[in-house]
Amino acid sequence: MTHASTADRSPIKILPQEVIRKKRDGKPLSEGEIEAFIAGVTEGSIPDYQIAAMLMAIFLRGFNDAELAAWAQAMLHSGDVLDLSEIPGPKVDKHSTGGVGDKISLPLAPAVAACGVAVPMVSGRGLGHSGGTLDKLESIPGFRVDLGVDRFRRTVAELGLCLIGQTERIAPADRVLYALRDVTATVESVPLIASSIMSKKLAEGIDALVLDCKVGHGAFMKTRQQASQLGHAIKTIGAAAGKPVTVVVTDMDSPIGSSVGNALEVAESIAVLRGEGPADSRELTVRLGAEMLLCGGVVDSGAEGAERIAASLDGGSALDLFRRLVEAQDGDPRVVDDPQGILPRARQRTPVVAPKAGKVAAIAAEDVGVAALVLGAGRRRKEDKVDPAVGIEMAVRVGDTVAVGEPLAFLIHNDRGVEEARQRLLGAFRIGDRAAPPGSRILEVLR
Amino acid sequence: MTHASTADRSPIKILPQEVIRKKRDGKPLSEGEIEAFIAGVTEGSIPDYQIAAMLMAIFLRGFNDAELAAWAQAMLHSGDVLDLSEIPGPKVDKHSTGGVGDKISLPLAPAVAACGVAVPMVSGRGLGHSGGTLDKLESIPGFRVDLGVDRFRRTVAELGLCLIGQTERIAPADRVLYALRDVTATVESVPLIASSIMSKKLAEGIDALVLDCKVGHGAFMKTRQQASQLGHAIKTIGAAAGKPVTVVVTDMDSPIGSSVGNALEVAESIAVLRGEGPADSRELTVRLGAEMLLCGGVVDSGAEGAERIAASLDGGSALDLFRRLVEAQDGDPRVVDDPQGILPRARQRTPVVAPKAGKVAAIAAEDVGVAALVLGAGRRRKEDKVDPAVGIEMAVRVGDTVAVGEPLAFLIHNDRGVEEARQRLLGAFRIGDRAAPPGSRILEVLR
Repeated sequence: MTHASTADRSPIKILPQEVIRKKRDGKPLSEGEIEAFIAGVTEGSIPDYQIAAMLMAIFLRGFNDAELAAWAQAMLHSGDVLDLSEIPGPKVDKHSTGGVGDKISLPLAPAVAACGVAVPMVSGRGLGHSGGTLDKLESIPGFRVDLGVDRFRRTVAELGLCLIGQTERIAPADRVLYALRDVTATVESVPLIASSIMSKKLAEGIDALVLDCKVGHGAFMKTRQQASQLGHAIKTIGAAAGKPVTVVVTDMDSPIGSSVGNALEVAESIAVLRGEGPADSRELTVRLGAEMLLCGGVVDSGAEGAERIAASLDGGSALDLFRRLVEAQDGDPRVVDDPQGILPRARQRTPVVAPKAGKVAAIAAEDVGVAALVLGAGRRRKEDKVDPAVGIEMAVRVGDTVAVGEPLAFLIHNDRGVEEARQRLLGAFRIGDRAAPPGSRILEVLR
Repeated sequence: MTHASTADRSPIKILPQEVIRKKRDGKPLSEGEIEAFIAGVTEGSIPDYQIAAMLMAIFLRGFNDAELAAWAQAMLHSGDVLDLSEIPGPKVDKHSTGGVGDKISLPLAPAVAACGVAVPMVSGRGLGHSGGTLDKLESIPGFRVDLGVDRFRRTVAELGLCLIGQTERIAPADRVLYALRDVTATVESVPLIASSIMSKKLAEGIDALVLDCKVGHGAFMKTRQQASQLGHAIKTIGAAAGKPVTVVVTDMDSPIGSSVGNALEVAESIAVLRGEGPADSRELTVRLGAEMLLCGGVVDSGAEGAERIAASLDGGSALDLFRRLVEAQDGDPRVVDDPQGILPRARQRTPVVAPKAGKVAAIAAEDVGVAALVLGAGRRRKEDKVDPAVGIEMAVRVGDTVAVGEPLAFLIHNDRGVEEARQRLLGAFRIGDRAAPPGSRILEVLR
């Protein structure tokens, strides 16, 4: 009987409209009310229209810290929670709120694992300009992200890392809420975003989390204030669950690194793992990795952590671990030595050139992301298929000087969307008389 | 094709979540957006969860006057709008926001019609402590409220009044919204209440409306401020539609008149129509009737209107018209001369007595209403059947002096709920050392 199982999970009985009314009036909900509401969401006993009204009330009224922690905990426990405690040593994950050209998980996870902190990374697929981490990995021939929990656990135990997709059994309440938020204009809510992220991350069996909270043109959070609100909310949820969270606020105004698109970003990640690659991609890998090592308790300072990560990139241990990871997840390990030969390649490479001479003052990340999306690198809708080969290769970065007709970037494309992508991409560049030299991507670290 | 008909009704295309987002952010919606949203509600193309999120956003963000008028107009035009223009003379209706013992429509409609202003009254059934106007009328043996539009029109033309229930074709958007508001904690919203009322009232083909806006313990609106907000909203919608509305704010702290319950209230109404009956029931009839005559342009002042209404009650013309109305709607007209003999009667009459001596300082209307509901006079849920015979007969009014053991009221009941009703009823009375004498029910008139 459904009722029996409800009673087991939620000792108190609620009338959903009474809980909605309370939140509507800005009154704090009790832990019991929140647990019972989320139980109703999970088992389907609360209809969509009541959930939708509740989401709007939360959007407009917010949560206090206790409500936020209880809501996230209830979402977490709506599904399976992995227990990796039998694997010795610290387990730390990183989550990024998402950006354009953000391939950092790929070099980061092996670098951190090579330094002795395990990285059990479970990613959602979601929507985005250029695919998510799972899409990027899947551009490596053979690479599988649907390993199942047992193999995930074994791989983490053996290699110290594994990267898989969410199973149906992780935070099922989040799937219901997420689908509804998308169509009820309740996506951009700090407590709803924070609890959605944490309900999935805490299910991984981690000890601590580093949140890369992106801010700027190409990010979900457009202002420092929004980013720090989200960071605070995530830290609150983590603290209540006994899982410390370090928030790193990073600049997402211009695209990260020199490539946007799935296979292109794998190639750039391999470059970073060789101790090469664009300076900002390396910086993000080193600094986020340093915070993960600090969270894991294997170093005493950020500076020591940064040295260790840099050494793992420059010394080959991170690349080596990536090779073993690819193999362990059924991918073709030759990709590590010959990315150009193994990764899918698009048929054409079309330059987009500077219409005037000057300094590159800004490259609007979101426009570059949309250009990649138009070529087929990302998904507009869940059903869309991603083209792993296409994307954008940046030829200049902010602060560079360009002459008329010089390439700003290249469209790496097949048949789809070239003209629209060119227009979008051209619109992303602001060329002027002067430009500030690019600063650090790291804006703030909240430990 | 559904799409073709949508295009006909709503020239602009909307993405519902974008309109929700706009309201969520407190921005005013355009007339086109509102029309398209309501068209989607009516035809079922906008799912319940999006409507629910919108209702919560409206609840928390409100409407400006232009939005309010457009929303009510769109709801009105979601269904049939009667045109009674071929019936000569003014047509004015009254609407009450609902109270305990509020039977005033029954004496009021014939009194106003007897003075030369037609009253085409279409009522909803709704929920309530003691049934609505339709339930009261149906306690008269044979009385039918489901006459259909043609017979309604003929009866108004012939007698100057007719009282029927809403058809399925009046404001269908309101039915969808109302059902959702009930379960999403979005009932108590001034713009949503006002547009719900007006979408149905403006469909009657009236020239003007008098709104009896009740305030106090037994009313939906608990404070003068809420009542005047609702009054303002209703006037705004009426003005935009070219239908003037007079708002009469009336006191609903203690039950109206001396009876609560369907047949009991019919008997009291007949007493008022004979020029007798409780002073407050007569006062409300006279004053609301006066405003209706003023709206209809057949008198020049409220005072003149009051005189005319009083004369129709005292001279027998209102009673005579009520008799003809009962006959025209298939009821037994002998009820007018022998209410006790014709109306259904409950088996028992049980006194509730004063536990101490003193002055009756207050009689909490809502508690009296709930006592009547418990006996079966009203509905908790739409499916509930009303017992027409049961209810409460008041033996004292505010300001009276009582001795220990003297009856305060009588439960008029069959088998159901006697003990609970007695407790409820007893709890309604506050007996103290002093009591202010009862004042006028009329608190404010907003013309």
